[in-house]
Amino acid sequence: MEGIAIMTSGGDAAGMNPAVKSAVDYSISKGLKPYLIRDGLRGMIDGDISAATREDVSGILHRGGTVLRSSRSKRFFEYEYRKQAYDNLQKLGINKLIVIGGDGSFAALNQFYADFGVPFAGIPATIDNDIPGTDYCLGVDTALNMIRDSVDSIRDTATSFNRAFVIETMGRDCGYLAMVSALSSGAEICIVPELEYDLDAIGQRLRKDIENGRSSILAIVAEGTNMAEYLTRWITVNLNMETRLTVLGHVQRGGSPTVNDRIMAYKFSVAAVDSLLAGHTNKIMVFREGQLGALDIETVNSSKVELDPQIIDLCGHLTK
Amino acid sequence: MEGIAIMTSGGDAAGMNPAVKSAVDYSISKGLKPYLIRDGLRGMIDGDISAATREDVSGILHRGGTVLRSSRSKRFFEYEYRKQAYDNLQKLGINKLIVIGGDGSFAALNQFYADFGVPFAGIPATIDNDIPGTDYCLGVDTALNMIRDSVDSIRDTATSFNRAFVIETMGRDCGYLAMVSALSSGAEICIVPELEYDLDAIGQRLRKDIENGRSSILAIVAEGTNMAEYLTRWITVNLNMETRLTVLGHVQRGGSPTVNDRIMAYKFSVAAVDSLLAGHTNKIMVFREGQLGALDIETVNSSKVELDPQIIDLCGHLTK
Amino acid sequence: MEGIAIMTSGGDAAGMNPAVKSAVDYSISKGLKPYLIRDGLRGMIDGDISAATREDVSGILHRGGTVLRSSRSKRFFEYEYRKQAYDNLQKLGINKLIVIGGDGSFAALNQFYADFGVPFAGIPATIDNDIPGTDYCLGVDTALNMIRDSVDSIRDTATSFNRAFVIETMGRDCGYLAMVSALSSGAEICIVPELEYDLDAIGQRLRKDIENGRSSILAIVAEGTNMAEYLTRWITVNLNMETRLTVLGHVQRGGSPTVNDRIMAYKFSVAAVDSLLAGHTNKIMVFREGQLGALDIETVNSSKVELDPQIIDLCGHLTK
Amino acid sequence: MEGIAIMTSGGDAAGMNPAVKSAVDYSISKGLKPYLIRDGLRGMIDGDISAATREDVSGILHRGGTVLRSSRSKRFFEYEYRKQAYDNLQKLGINKLIVIGGDGSFAALNQFYADFGVPFAGIPATIDNDIPGTDYCLGVDTALNMIRDSVDSIRDTATSFNRAFVIETMGRDCGYLAMVSALSSGAEICIVPELEYDLDAIGQRLRKDIENGRSSILAIVAEGTNMAEYLTRWITVNLNMETRLTVLGHVQRGGSPTVNDRIMAYKFSVAAVDSLLAGHTNKIMVFREGQLGALDIETVNSSKVELDPQIIDLCGHLTK
Repeated sequence: MEGIAIMTSGGDAAGMNPAVKSAVDYSISKGLKPYLIRDGLRGMIDGDISAATREDVSGILHRGGTVLRSSRSKRFFEYEYRKQAYDNLQKLGINKLIVIGGDGSFAALNQFYADFGVPFAGIPATIDNDIPGTDYCLGVDTALNMIRDSVDSIRDTATSFNRAFVIETMGRDCGYLAMVSALSSGAEICIVPELEYDLDAIGQRLRKDIENGRSSILAIVAEGTNMAEYLTRWITVNLNMETRLTVLGHVQRGGSPTVNDRIMAYKFSVAAVDSLLAGHTNKIMVFREGQLGALDIETVNSSKVELDPQIIDLCGHLTK
Repeated sequence: MEGIAIMTSGGDAAGMNPAVKSAVDYSISKGLKPYLIRDGLRGMIDGDISAATREDVSGILHRGGTVLRSSRSKRFFEYEYRKQAYDNLQKLGINKLIVIGGDGSFAALNQFYADFGVPFAGIPATIDNDIPGTDYCLGVDTALNMIRDSVDSIRDTATSFNRAFVIETMGRDCGYLAMVSALSSGAEICIVPELEYDLDAIGQRLRKDIENGRSSILAIVAEGTNMAEYLTRWITVNLNMETRLTVLGHVQRGGSPTVNDRIMAYKFSVAAVDSLLAGHTNKIMVFREGQLGALDIETVNSSKVELDPQIIDLCGHLTK
Repeated sequence: MEGIAIMTSGGDAAGMNPAVKSAVDYSISKGLKPYLIRDGLRGMIDGDISAATREDVSGILHRGGTVLRSSRSKRFFEYEYRKQAYDNLQKLGINKLIVIGGDGSFAALNQFYADFGVPFAGIPATIDNDIPGTDYCLGVDTALNMIRDSVDSIRDTATSFNRAFVIETMGRDCGYLAMVSALSSGAEICIVPELEYDLDAIGQRLRKDIENGRSSILAIVAEGTNMAEYLTRWITVNLNMETRLTVLGHVQRGGSPTVNDRIMAYKFSVAAVDSLLAGHTNKIMVFREGQLGALDIETVNSSKVELDPQIIDLCGHLTK
Repeated sequence: MEGIAIMTSGGDAAGMNPAVKSAVDYSISKGLKPYLIRDGLRGMIDGDISAATREDVSGILHRGGTVLRSSRSKRFFEYEYRKQAYDNLQKLGINKLIVIGGDGSFAALNQFYADFGVPFAGIPATIDNDIPGTDYCLGVDTALNMIRDSVDSIRDTATSFNRAFVIETMGRDCGYLAMVSALSSGAEICIVPELEYDLDAIGQRLRKDIENGRSSILAIVAEGTNMAEYLTRWITVNLNMETRLTVLGHVQRGGSPTVNDRIMAYKFSVAAVDSLLAGHTNKIMVFREGQLGALDIETVNSSKVELDPQIIDLCGHLTK
């Protein structure tokens, strides 16, 4: 039986566990022998690889994070360690790889493919939703609903007082989490890297609202803008309202995968196994316009992240 | 200012409240004067209609059900009562309608349009996800995640004993909720109207699993199959396992809307207002292949519900 | 090192897992060697017992149900199998037992103590809260909050229509879950074994409320009264309101333990280990008037369950 | 009919809404006429007071925060404004007050009683659980379970990497939230104002754990210690582990009240109305040793906060 190894790599995201489970189950049904690599690239180098048992993957699909664990390994940049990883796979008869992670991980596996010809299939997973070529990355829906819970809770307090709250979500270069959260929580302000903002206009709009009876303000700010603390002081001074800052932090990462993340995990992992069985060597699974597909890694790398234009449009009035 | 009235009709679904809020907010931004109709068609007949205030729609987007309330009104089948409804709208200067509900409600409004020429836009909302022409109806994602919570909780108990659980979800003619829930909860059996099942084959498969150490079984059954009680006895006798039935019931309907239902509510309601402003008279908003669109009500009525073929495919092995 | 074995027995309840973890951790800190018995009494008979490792109990405290699993074993009623269980303990040097479960399990262990002199400490755990001598049993708070989530969700739908809902909670002879749930959900009717009810009076009260504008009714019924279906028809006919029944079932049992159940699990298990170290042979841990204590099993057996009189008092007006 | 007015004051806490609802319902059943004061002391001064309607309090018991809203009013320190507040009450025939809040609010009402002889009953509500004389304050259980959700989510991520997390909870002078959260989340470190800590000992203990395979660390720190940032750096350097800080912030305040907070709200508010009907003039409701009671405000003021000694004991090993 041909061996296929599954790993998670990069930042953890909800949906990784159901993807692992589904990849194992579907591999078996297709006559492959699935293996699990622990700790991502580190485990590949150090040979932390074992045949997948039913126990390994039963009872994991509702759990957050990744039971295979992840890591960031600098050693994998060196040929010597990649060779060591290759030898580990050879010994176990593994000639196919599935990697669940982000574009850094895909690039590493692509280099590995260039070196040793071991084909891989990539499953996009990151709560930032910033992998080019796909509209959806595993973990995004769960992260958004975790943020929803936090923001709804803060809203309870905000409406109990005359008070403003600034909430910082994750997202370095991509404001997707912040934009969707701003819309879905009914926020009054949204500051993200993708959109220009006009504090003067925001101030005018909200002062008018306050005159008309508004007593609380919610602002959602993407981490990458570094604007959270500034905006907190700005509201305090310019809108004359007691203002509190909450940095949501790692609470956003965990949580039991939502139904959507579980289903997408199934679809992506079935597609990944099928891609390898069809002889594709280095495709990334993608979801575009409601359809599953696969793209060459070169196409992914040369693409830009395209945000849902309707989301951008709907957020426009929160920036001015 | 032109008046536009918003109502919810038919069975309640999460997402109705954010749709109402967004329709009101967006109507104002477009220079329309929004009204709210209470209790659906009943309120239209009885004139339970008032201009929407900020208080009406602030603080509702995270609430389940519908604050406008709904009803089933037989009187609306009679011309006399529809005429009365029309007079109510006339008095208030309302010449546009948005109805959030199912196909029965759309048909009623279409008859109203035929009678009096008041254009409407329909927003599909039903947890059954069984409105033709659209891949998504408001409320489905929230219902699925409510079911997830219940099934994950039952799974806790199932794995604590040697025990089987049969769980009945809502869904008269459509097994969508049951199929997606079966996949996302890792169930072993799924019985829905759309798929044939083979109990002998299921028995063989699971007896083998039990020999290999399986100690709990989860079966998801759609209400419309009327199979829940039969299957409970069948498992007890044929797999020799203590088996319990849980009928999830109305727990599935409520709950705070998920982020996806809030965002879809926004998109649908913006599209509905735009459709009316563009002069369309009786379009239903739809979501297909990841894109928002609008269909003539005749097209919707003459279409069939098409389930995601991949979901059907993935469920196949749970029916035999 | 002296061996101490920990088991869960009877119906599963949230809080069992943190109790197991804490019993293991505290036993180690006291110089004991902890063992885990799988599947309750069955595992004791069949020797399914192993030394507890850190892996066994790490990452379990937030999980519902019991990872040690439970069972109902008739064989334990026979001396021959108890002897076999005793031999299993002897071989491993186990001379102390902690059992987390209900009074049936305590009685079994007490017989075992009478036979072979192996002392045990009992930790009360059952969502029914019906073990005499203690105000609190592990699992009750989590069950109540699971019911809260379900009832709050149903309330969303109830207030969207003119509709009544009858909700059946678990509880054979004890209406504690139903009473507390009725109060905490603001129900209008509560039917439990402990309280007489007067449907005529209830009808009068609610008809008056309906005249004054009440549009939805919530009734909570304890399983043990067998009244759920009758009441559903009764409301339909007598209050002329569409009425739906939801039997909550096993959803109530699972779910991640609440903070209170985790903390009580810690307190109970520390007290259980201390009780055994102090030389007590067959005490049951109890929580009364806000204080932890321990009672002889005879005292427990000869006691009656005493419900919080204030809860009964507050529920009084929901029965007439 | 005698008028009784109900207000919430100070920081908001879950349980305030069910307390308001219950105070209104119970007052009516006792023949009193309930009024609601908005925005706490501010509304009393400005006459923002109205007779309570059924609509005001229906559908609020599952909502977080306080629908009556709260404020901090410096004007109430001046006799002139208190006189104005008194005149407002006089006009409406209000001669009894219930205040749901913290000790600052109780002191204000006691001064008001000294000035004008209007008796009041206080209901302790603050998530800090730091009001002397009572073991429990409304809001604490909900806050603890909100923290649980956040910490369990962070734990998902922590176990996916070799990583440490420092989590700061609210609590200025009182480490109750932090201590209970540390225990219930299985944290390895707990830093609170009440307990001395020994970083050297902590370092030794955890380095040994890490040698034995521990790969993640969770530390809970009370806000009042100002230790969160320092500890984050300390772990990074001394345990050589990537360490992240999350300040939970206002997420802890909101959320739907737990069953315990709803039931305690009922008990406290019934007791408060009864206290006033019995002729007591300035009692604070308390919960001690599992029993409801009432204390003179002087006794409360001269008491010290006494933390559950068992919680302190169980936390001891997390400080060294």
